[in-house]
Amino acid sequence: MVQKPLILVTNDDGISAPGIRALIDVMNEIGDVVVVAPDSPQSGMGHAITINSTLFVEKVIIDDNNQIEYSCSGTPADCVKLAVNEILKKKPDLCVSGINHGSNSSINVIYSGTMSAAIEAGFEGIPAIGFSLLDYNYNADFEASKHYVKKIVQNVLTHKLNEGVLLNVNIPNLLEKDIKGVKICRQAKGNWIEEFDKRKTPQGKDYYWLTGKFVNLDKGEDTDEWALQNGYVSVVPVQFDLTAHHSIQNLNTWNFND
Amino acid sequence: MVQKPLILVTNDDGISAPGIRALIDVMNEIGDVVVVAPDSPQSGMGHAITINSTLFVEKVIIDDNNQIEYSCSGTPADCVKLAVNEILKKKPDLCVSGINHGSNSSINVIYSGTMSAAIEAGFEGIPAIGFSLLDYNYNADFEASKHYVKKIVQNVLTHKLNEGVLLNVNIPNLLEKDIKGVKICRQAKGNWIEEFDKRKTPQGKDYYWLTGKFVNLDKGEDTDEWALQNGYVSVVPVQFDLTAHHSIQNLNTWNFND
Repeated sequence: MVQKPLILVTNDDGISAPGIRALIDVMNEIGDVVVVAPDSPQSGMGHAITINSTLFVEKVIIDDNNQIEYSCSGTPADCVKLAVNEILKKKPDLCVSGINHGSNSSINVIYSGTMSAAIEAGFEGIPAIGFSLLDYNYNADFEASKHYVKKIVQNVLTHKLNEGVLLNVNIPNLLEKDIKGVKICRQAKGNWIEEFDKRKTPQGKDYYWLTGKFVNLDKGEDTDEWALQNGYVSVVPVQFDLTAHHSIQNLNTWNFND
Repeated sequence: MVQKPLILVTNDDGISAPGIRALIDVMNEIGDVVVVAPDSPQSGMGHAITINSTLFVEKVIIDDNNQIEYSCSGTPADCVKLAVNEILKKKPDLCVSGINHGSNSSINVIYSGTMSAAIEAGFEGIPAIGFSLLDYNYNADFEASKHYVKKIVQNVLTHKLNEGVLLNVNIPNLLEKDIKGVKICRQAKGNWIEEFDKRKTPQGKDYYWLTGKFVNLDKGEDTDEWALQNGYVSVVPVQFDLTAHHSIQNLNTWNFND
């Protein structure tokens, strides 16, 4: 009998979000599934970890399927650390995070809790993928996503990701028949234009809500933004070596040492 | 009269931490300084932003010097967004973050609130530098740091950082006379070995504290870890395009579309 791969599943919308439930469904068709996910939504947490507070983990049963599940009081990155170091008996063959309710394309990869979990797994040397659907609604339709999640996971298990590389997958909010396929992309040079909504408390003190809109000024047709706007699933290989290697030569001509 | 540069100062240890007070001192010698910093410590917050909660900002006076200061209830990334979009009348010529109490070398750049502020400024097209001293103590000695902070800031203001690039500067915990100079480096491939300290609440429920130790298995002599262990200030150029460009060709040979 061929041994099934051990798959760790997490997310940042919380363990009961429809996106992670859809992801668990697909992973149950492929491997032995352990879920360690936040007990509440963690969106916008970036790569936060819990160092000044306690972490609670609880075994939970949410449906009748075969996966084993743990709900955790921490961030997505905490969930991966706890899974790998405390919960799992062996290193998983794959870590998948999501399916996020909303896009993590372009620079949103940096704010994304979904992607921080995948990056954390990457640190641990585990092949990792973050999945996001371009629909913020709680009741988003994950049917088309399931098809592409399966295809991409099977590819990652069959082939081999380069060392220090994981995948950021975004799925357009379209019916399966209208999605044109998968495109390997680079991260678009997009930007948030922030707008702060300034208000006053009943006591007259100013406060703000952060709002804003995302603007993509990158006209390249090799970007994730282009792919998504043209009906493709975008797959961006992501690395966590942030060194701007092309800048080292320039900086070596500067005058730091006299 | 030559106009002085407008410098935005922030950090993640909170506005009253000795590290940011030392940074403000040096910046007052160079430019017009506006401080927008968290009202409390935010370490380990990664690139978190506050989207589900209110943000409070208050003008504060902490000492008799010339800078203008605001204390903010948000994360370091929030502080930069608020400064650029609400508080400052014009785009700053420079954003500096720190001086962090503790290292942000190697992959710690990804967990670092100090660096997330610098990265956020980078998104906004502002030249940016994060500074960290390898001493976690509240009463760390920032004298040697001040010398190197000034040197590096003057270089960034004189020369030009490449587009989409900022600097991650780490300073060894040594006397100024024992520091050998500045070294331009790449981010070392280091790792955290997590250890969870498992305890029980008085009611008998399990909980964890995250602990661990950093291990550098990267033997390269061009890394920030090597530089710091050998008495140099490390300067790593950092980019926020996370695309692993070298992996795109490999992924294009995979089988996603049939």
